[in-house]
Amino acid sequence: MPKPRTLRLAEIAGRLGGEVLGNGDTEVQGLASLAMAGPGDLSFLSRGRFRAQLASTRAAAVIVGAPDRDATRLPRIVCDDPYAYYARVAELFNPCLAPEPGLHPSACVEPGAQVMPSASIGPRCHVAQGAFIGERVSLGAGCAIGAHVRIGDDSRLYALVSIYPECVIGRRAVIHSGAVIGADGFGMAREGERWRKIPQLGKVVIGDDVEIGANTTIDRGALEDTVIEDGVKLDNQIQVGHNVHIGAHTAIAGCVGIAGSARIGRRCTIGGAASILGHLELADDVHIGAASVVTRSIREPGEYAGLYPIQDKARWARNAVLLRSLEKLARRVRALELELGRRSPEE
Amino acid sequence: MPKPRTLRLAEIAGRLGGEVLGNGDTEVQGLASLAMAGPGDLSFLSRGRFRAQLASTRAAAVIVGAPDRDATRLPRIVCDDPYAYYARVAELFNPCLAPEPGLHPSACVEPGAQVMPSASIGPRCHVAQGAFIGERVSLGAGCAIGAHVRIGDDSRLYALVSIYPECVIGRRAVIHSGAVIGADGFGMAREGERWRKIPQLGKVVIGDDVEIGANTTIDRGALEDTVIEDGVKLDNQIQVGHNVHIGAHTAIAGCVGIAGSARIGRRCTIGGAASILGHLELADDVHIGAASVVTRSIREPGEYAGLYPIQDKARWARNAVLLRSLEKLARRVRALELELGRRSPEE
Amino acid sequence: MPKPRTLRLAEIAGRLGGEVLGNGDTEVQGLASLAMAGPGDLSFLSRGRFRAQLASTRAAAVIVGAPDRDATRLPRIVCDDPYAYYARVAELFNPCLAPEPGLHPSACVEPGAQVMPSASIGPRCHVAQGAFIGERVSLGAGCAIGAHVRIGDDSRLYALVSIYPECVIGRRAVIHSGAVIGADGFGMAREGERWRKIPQLGKVVIGDDVEIGANTTIDRGALEDTVIEDGVKLDNQIQVGHNVHIGAHTAIAGCVGIAGSARIGRRCTIGGAASILGHLELADDVHIGAASVVTRSIREPGEYAGLYPIQDKARWARNAVLLRSLEKLARRVRALELELGRRSPEE
Repeated sequence: MPKPRTLRLAEIAGRLGGEVLGNGDTEVQGLASLAMAGPGDLSFLSRGRFRAQLASTRAAAVIVGAPDRDATRLPRIVCDDPYAYYARVAELFNPCLAPEPGLHPSACVEPGAQVMPSASIGPRCHVAQGAFIGERVSLGAGCAIGAHVRIGDDSRLYALVSIYPECVIGRRAVIHSGAVIGADGFGMAREGERWRKIPQLGKVVIGDDVEIGANTTIDRGALEDTVIEDGVKLDNQIQVGHNVHIGAHTAIAGCVGIAGSARIGRRCTIGGAASILGHLELADDVHIGAASVVTRSIREPGEYAGLYPIQDKARWARNAVLLRSLEKLARRVRALELELGRRSPEE
Repeated sequence: MPKPRTLRLAEIAGRLGGEVLGNGDTEVQGLASLAMAGPGDLSFLSRGRFRAQLASTRAAAVIVGAPDRDATRLPRIVCDDPYAYYARVAELFNPCLAPEPGLHPSACVEPGAQVMPSASIGPRCHVAQGAFIGERVSLGAGCAIGAHVRIGDDSRLYALVSIYPECVIGRRAVIHSGAVIGADGFGMAREGERWRKIPQLGKVVIGDDVEIGANTTIDRGALEDTVIEDGVKLDNQIQVGHNVHIGAHTAIAGCVGIAGSARIGRRCTIGGAASILGHLELADDVHIGAASVVTRSIREPGEYAGLYPIQDKARWARNAVLLRSLEKLARRVRALELELGRRSPEE
Repeated sequence: MPKPRTLRLAEIAGRLGGEVLGNGDTEVQGLASLAMAGPGDLSFLSRGRFRAQLASTRAAAVIVGAPDRDATRLPRIVCDDPYAYYARVAELFNPCLAPEPGLHPSACVEPGAQVMPSASIGPRCHVAQGAFIGERVSLGAGCAIGAHVRIGDDSRLYALVSIYPECVIGRRAVIHSGAVIGADGFGMAREGERWRKIPQLGKVVIGDDVEIGANTTIDRGALEDTVIEDGVKLDNQIQVGHNVHIGAHTAIAGCVGIAGSARIGRRCTIGGAASILGHLELADDVHIGAASVVTRSIREPGEYAGLYPIQDKARWARNAVLLRSLEKLARRVRALELELGRRSPEE
């Protein structure tokens, strides 16, 4: 395992900015949360609700925002956004080590594939004919790269990723194990009681700086392409249907399903386990709550939600019975209103 | 990449039927949607809501249904079902190319496995003892085929599919990357606070013409088998529990979960992200809406739904509070009814 | 395929306990449900609702609980818990056969990895540097074991499992195909409209006797570790976010998503397709219904639920409209109450 690295506070601030208060020569060997930090650790306060932990933390030093500059006497770095600052410090402590360039002896690159010499092709990988693997790309063990796939410079695929033929991956992608890019979309036409498969002739085109989580699947388009724009972040176990278009810098949490031909704007966030039905549009800057189902286009930025509240089971059961016959309750209210001579209800 | 193929309208109709109106010598090189078609493309009108695009399409020719035979002056093929016709034309343009027969040098077939000579076993595949691989089957890179598995003629498995021992796959199956067929069902008995695993002794039996999407999982049965009948189509990321039985020609969209011992009829459709609880039955021709949870058997054909409507978050929150105490609202209505001397409510 | 094994009832009871009634020399070759059993089969009655099947079963003998000791004249074993007893008989009939120890010739173990001689490393496996593989561990085809991973004695990984560097798996684990352990958690900080990835520096630590289903994903921690305690059972297609902690002997059904930093108690059960939001706690012995969304900490043991009831689609649609405006209905009730001079409602 890699040896711990030691940095002084002043050194960190020298590289990343921020103001050092207290002893700038304080040495730290790693990062930890306020609650778990030990003597050699640098910690950070990014949310108000952890403020109480400042008093008891054993950290050697902390990263705080301007409003908290005097909230502790520990040596500290004051900055605009402690959470983003922590992300950068984490990179300092853990520089992403590129694997050794070259082909593992057990990798198989077919004739007609092109692999840049700085790329690292892991054990058991298969790179099919016509594929192009860019500079400093790294492929983990057992990846299957289809014919004519293009993978941009500095992308990293972990073990056991499958990319179907002709898909295009941009630069600096991170793709986790079990992800499947470019499988057939779910397209069928009825013929009597049988289904006829519709050949899926599009591909998947993925921009730069995209991260794709473990076991996430992105289907190829039916006629045109499925498109994932720059900077999109997809968590694990997400399903993206054919011909979906996801705008730049949108982030989608785990277990989300996006049905075919949905069009999602830029800078959206989609909560975990949400579902987006097909052939609809989300505007830019739309935020969908966890486990909500988007059944219609949403044209205004903002926050949207729709999940059934959890309760103890007996109460839930009684309420659910009433929900199933909400119509009846509404009719009873209307009958009372009529009896009292009220005019038709407000709506 | 494959070279485009050129077909004349009259040639297409000669093979697939339909009536050509306009110049039958019109040449087309591919398919595209009305909106995206270019000069060499054949397009199609399958849904009324795209009719307006007929006027502006740049397609060389279009496929239309009988009601739209005069809706354009473009060269056209008139047929009964433009969507199914398009599916067939897509096959003409993109005949499914069987990979070269034979074993990739890096494939490993154990002694006692039988592979038909017309089958194609991809790089890094492992075929365990006693397995049988039928005529013209193709296995993508890195597939793991367990002992005594049988795969019927003309089936195609993409890269990195895992089939557990003894499972049976029919003819003309299409199985996408990351699918797992035959893992243990989730069966356990309580013993004090611990769980004792129940050996899963059944297998998975899959009929002919079944498609299984990427990262879909189908568990083996506990005692008897899990059964998927002919013509079933499963999208990506579906979970099928042990001892489930899915009737012929049922189609299931992505992210659906089906709990153990559920029995689903023929020609059903299940919308994306729906859940089917265990030990229940769905009749033939039942259609379940997206994201709905089937909690009881459904014995009548028809359409069923149950999803929480999405709203702007503030409204949702206010409504959800009321939903959590719908009982109270119902009691208040009852109190009003009593006060007005009304008899007990309609139900 | 393995040959059937024959056992006498008295032999079974001799090994597993229980009282034999009727002919103890009755021979059985396997297990089957009451409905499907044939002449050589042993069956069992574990739930009251199958009792009627006792009269018609063709089984040679049955396992029953004390209350059912006289419910049949078939030869039988009477025991405390027929379901747990059946689990043990199933083990007798199907002893888990350890694969042959040793490395498959196509496996690749990097220098610096340590593999116990009794372990079985399957075809195409890759074991990276510094990894430790315990006694009698078996790895299925194509597994990718990252650097410095530790896998405890007697664990079994099926084909195509990916374990990221530094993760720790306990003893007697069962991990199914397509599972991904230790991929990066979904951690990002906003920087303008872009996202900056937060290095995920923790690992995954898994206790003893844990089962992990096919295509389940467990992310590594951001700073501290993701922890799965002893005896936890995870079904297929589950997503476990970074820094989650799951208490011992908790069982989680398929398709569940657990967001980052959730803390789940001991002996909990989570129904299929439920979602657990992040940064919350579930006490010990909490039971969450299928498809429910846990949005807040639950501090009391008990059963909780929250799912939208399914209905025929037309009724659902009418009720859903009312649900979207439940506020209005409540205001109308309030207006009626005021009109009748009632005081403010009960709550």
